[in-house]
Amino acid sequence: MEIEIKEIQELINKREFNKLKVKLNEVNEADIPALLEELDKENVVKVFRLLSKELAGEAFSYMEADMREKLVQSLTDAELKNVMDELFMDDTVDLIEEMPSNIVPRLLRVVNKKDRKIINDLLKYPEDSAGSIMTTEFVDLREDMTIAQALQRIRDIGVDSETIYTCYVLSNNRVLMGIVNIKEILISKEDTLIKDLMETNIISVNTIEDQEEVTKLFDKYDYYALPVVDTENRLVGIITMDDAINVLQDEVSEDFEKMAAITPNEESYFKTSVFQHAKSRIIWLLVLMLSAAVTGGIITEYEQAFAAIPLLVAFIPMIMGTGGNCGSQSSTLIIRGLATDEIEPRDIFKALWKEFRVALLVGVVLAVVNGIRTVLQYQDFQLAIIVGLTLIATVILAKALGCLLPLLAKKLKLDPAIMAAPLITTLVDVFSILVYFQIATALMGL
Amino acid sequence: MEIEIKEIQELINKREFNKLKVKLNEVNEADIPALLEELDKENVVKVFRLLSKELAGEAFSYMEADMREKLVQSLTDAELKNVMDELFMDDTVDLIEEMPSNIVPRLLRVVNKKDRKIINDLLKYPEDSAGSIMTTEFVDLREDMTIAQALQRIRDIGVDSETIYTCYVLSNNRVLMGIVNIKEILISKEDTLIKDLMETNIISVNTIEDQEEVTKLFDKYDYYALPVVDTENRLVGIITMDDAINVLQDEVSEDFEKMAAITPNEESYFKTSVFQHAKSRIIWLLVLMLSAAVTGGIITEYEQAFAAIPLLVAFIPMIMGTGGNCGSQSSTLIIRGLATDEIEPRDIFKALWKEFRVALLVGVVLAVVNGIRTVLQYQDFQLAIIVGLTLIATVILAKALGCLLPLLAKKLKLDPAIMAAPLITTLVDVFSILVYFQIATALMGL
Repeated sequence: MEIEIKEIQELINKREFNKLKVKLNEVNEADIPALLEELDKENVVKVFRLLSKELAGEAFSYMEADMREKLVQSLTDAELKNVMDELFMDDTVDLIEEMPSNIVPRLLRVVNKKDRKIINDLLKYPEDSAGSIMTTEFVDLREDMTIAQALQRIRDIGVDSETIYTCYVLSNNRVLMGIVNIKEILISKEDTLIKDLMETNIISVNTIEDQEEVTKLFDKYDYYALPVVDTENRLVGIITMDDAINVLQDEVSEDFEKMAAITPNEESYFKTSVFQHAKSRIIWLLVLMLSAAVTGGIITEYEQAFAAIPLLVAFIPMIMGTGGNCGSQSSTLIIRGLATDEIEPRDIFKALWKEFRVALLVGVVLAVVNGIRTVLQYQDFQLAIIVGLTLIATVILAKALGCLLPLLAKKLKLDPAIMAAPLITTLVDVFSILVYFQIATALMGL
Repeated sequence: MEIEIKEIQELINKREFNKLKVKLNEVNEADIPALLEELDKENVVKVFRLLSKELAGEAFSYMEADMREKLVQSLTDAELKNVMDELFMDDTVDLIEEMPSNIVPRLLRVVNKKDRKIINDLLKYPEDSAGSIMTTEFVDLREDMTIAQALQRIRDIGVDSETIYTCYVLSNNRVLMGIVNIKEILISKEDTLIKDLMETNIISVNTIEDQEEVTKLFDKYDYYALPVVDTENRLVGIITMDDAINVLQDEVSEDFEKMAAITPNEESYFKTSVFQHAKSRIIWLLVLMLSAAVTGGIITEYEQAFAAIPLLVAFIPMIMGTGGNCGSQSSTLIIRGLATDEIEPRDIFKALWKEFRVALLVGVVLAVVNGIRTVLQYQDFQLAIIVGLTLIATVILAKALGCLLPLLAKKLKLDPAIMAAPLITTLVDVFSILVYFQIATALMGL
C-alpha cells in the first residue's frame, strides 16, 4: 500500500484534500476498503468522495456489506449513480441482494431502465446458482464477421465488458455458436472470418447449475470465463475466473465449518456477533451431546464389569479418541476427494476396500504399541489383549463409517461434509464402548 | 465429452483410425487424460499418437504423473520433442520434477539449448515458491512503443505466450516498469504511447515468495496474472490465475489433511497405496493414543470416586465429546480465518475475548439442557450440577485452546493447521476429566 492510514489522518487534519486525493488515487482498488475500515467514522464518506469515479466503483465492489450500507446511506443519488454505473452487473446484483430492503428501492431508482430489467431478471435465479453469480457484460460477435469487424466490435463495447479475453459468437437468436479468444483474433489476418476461427466444442453451464459445480469446471478446464446459457442454449451471461475463485473460497470455508459441526455463516469471523456465533455452534453440540448419552447408557449396563476391574475405565478415553481420529481421517479424505471430483460416489466399494486394508494395518500397529505400553505399565497381558482387540475393531469400524457415510450422503444428494468427524466420532463411540465391554466381559468372565 | 470410451474401443477394434482421429481431436484437452485412463494399457500410446500435436501437448499438461511417465517411456524422441514444444515452461518444469531421475536426461536432451538453460534456472527455485510455479512465456513491451508497435509485438510473440491479456512493460535491463492490459491497448488510438497507458502501481511477487501467499494475492486483487520479479525488480516470469487455482486447491487439501491428523500427501486418494495411506495416518494416531494414556492415568486416580458412584463414568463420553467438538469448532474457524487473512495473529486477544463469550453462552445452554436430561433420567440434582459445571468449564477451556493454539502457532511461524481438532481434543480431554472428578469429589465429599 502506497499510503499509510496515519498519513491519511494527517492530511485530513491539515485539510490538504488535494494532496490526499492524488495519494488516494494511486492506491489499488482492492486496498481501499481496508483503509476506509481503519478511518474514524466521520471521515469514511469524506475520503470515499475523493476517489475518482472509476476507483470508487471498483473499490466498492471489494467492500463488505456493512461498509457498503454505510456509504449507500451517506451518498447523494448522483454519487450513488456514479458508483453503480461502474459496477458490473454481478456486483450490482450482489449489492442489491445484501442491502436491507428499505434501501433497495433507492438503488433501483438510480440505475437506468434497461439495467433495472436485467437486474430484476438476475435476482430471480436461485441462490448459489450459476445465474446468480454471472455477469451480463461480455463481447458478442457474429459468425460472418471478419477479424477487422470483430476488432471494431471489441473496441466499441469492450470497455464495458468484464472481460474481452474470450468473445462469444452468437446466432441471430442469441444461441451460442462458438467462442474465440482475443489471442487468436489478434494473430489472424484481417479478412479471416470468425466462423473459421471459432471453437465450436464449447464447455458451458446452465443458469441453474450449482455454483460449486461451476468452480469444478474452472479447476478442470483452466478457462478464464465460462459462458452461461439458458435451456435453449442462448447465451445469457458469463462467469469470470476471479468470481469463481471467490465462490471456491466460500465453498471451502463452508465445508470446513460443516465438518467442524458449525452451521455455515457467510459473514467473516469478527463481523459475526457473539450471539450469532453461539447460535451457529449450539445446534450440533446439542445433538451430539444428547447422542453421547447413548454411549453413557451403554456404560451403565457394564457397571459390574468396571466395579470388578476399575482399570477398564482408564482405557475409555484412549479407545474413544483413537476411534474418533481414525474416523475423522477417513471421512476428511473422502469428503475432500468428493469435493475435488477425485472420488466419485460409484467408487464406494473401491474406497471401502482400501479403507479396510488401511484400517487393518493401522489397527494392528496401534494394538501392538498399546499392548506393549499396557504390559509395561500394568503387567497385565489379558488387558493388553482386550484393549488391542477393541482397538482393531474400533479402527476398522471408524474407517468404514468415515468412508461409507460421506459417500452415502453424496448418493442421496445430501452434503457429504455433514458426515464428518463430529458425527462419525459420536457414532463410533457407541460401538467402540459396546465392543470393549463385550470383549472384556467375555474374556474376563465377568 | 463428445466420444464415449466404448466408441473408442470399437473404432480401435475395427481399426478405423482415421475416424477415431477426427473424433478424438474434437475432445477438450482436459478430458483426454480421463479417456486414456480408461483404455487398455496397450492402446494408450496408440490413441495418444492420434492426437494433433497441439492437442497432445495440451492434454499432456493435464495428466497425472504415472500416465505421463508411461507415455514418455513409450514415445520416440521426435514425438517427445513435439509434446515438450507445446508445453509452457511451468508445465515443463513440473514434468521434469516429477519424473524418475533416469528419465530426466532424455527430457532435457529433446528441448533446445535456450530452453534447457531456462529450465535449469527454474529448477533451482525452492519448492512451493513463486519461482517454482511461474512460467517464462509472457508479452514484454517497451515504454516508448506506440499501440501499433505493441500490437505488432503481441502478434509476433503472443502465440507462444501463456497469456496476452496482461502485457509487461520492461526497461532495457528488464526491470518491470508497468503493466498494461490488452483491453486498454485495443481501445486506444494507434499512436498512443505505452508509457501513457500503463499502470505503474504494480502488485508483484518475489521469486522466493511462498505460493500460498501468491494465491492470497489472486484472491484479493482479482488479477488474471501476477508478475514475478527478482530482488532487483527484474521481471523473470508470470503466474497465471489457472495455476493459482490449482495451488489453492492443493493448499486447501493439505490443510484438510493436517487438520484431520494426516501427514499431507500430494498423490490423489486412489493413487496412494494402502501402505502409504497407513504411513500418513499412523504417526499422529500413535502420538494421540499415547497422549490419551495421560487421561487414562488421571481416571485411575479417581477409582474410589467411581467405585462409590459408578454413574459418574457414564458421563465421561459426553464430556469428552462435547469438549472435543467445541475445541474443533473454534480451532477450525481460527485456522480458516488465518488461511484467508480474515484473522491476523495480532487479533489474538480480540479473538480470545470473542471465544470466551461464545463459550460462556454455549456452555450454559449445554449445562441446562443436560441438567434437565439428567434430572429426568436419574432424578439426581447433584449429578446435574456436577456435570453442568464441568461442561461449562470444559467448553470455555476447549474454545480458549482452540483459539489460542492456532494463533500461537502462526506467531511462531508454524502451520496453524496442526493445532486442529485431534490435538485440541486430546488436550481438552485431560483437563475436562480432571475438572470433572475434582468437582465430583469436592461436591460429593468422596
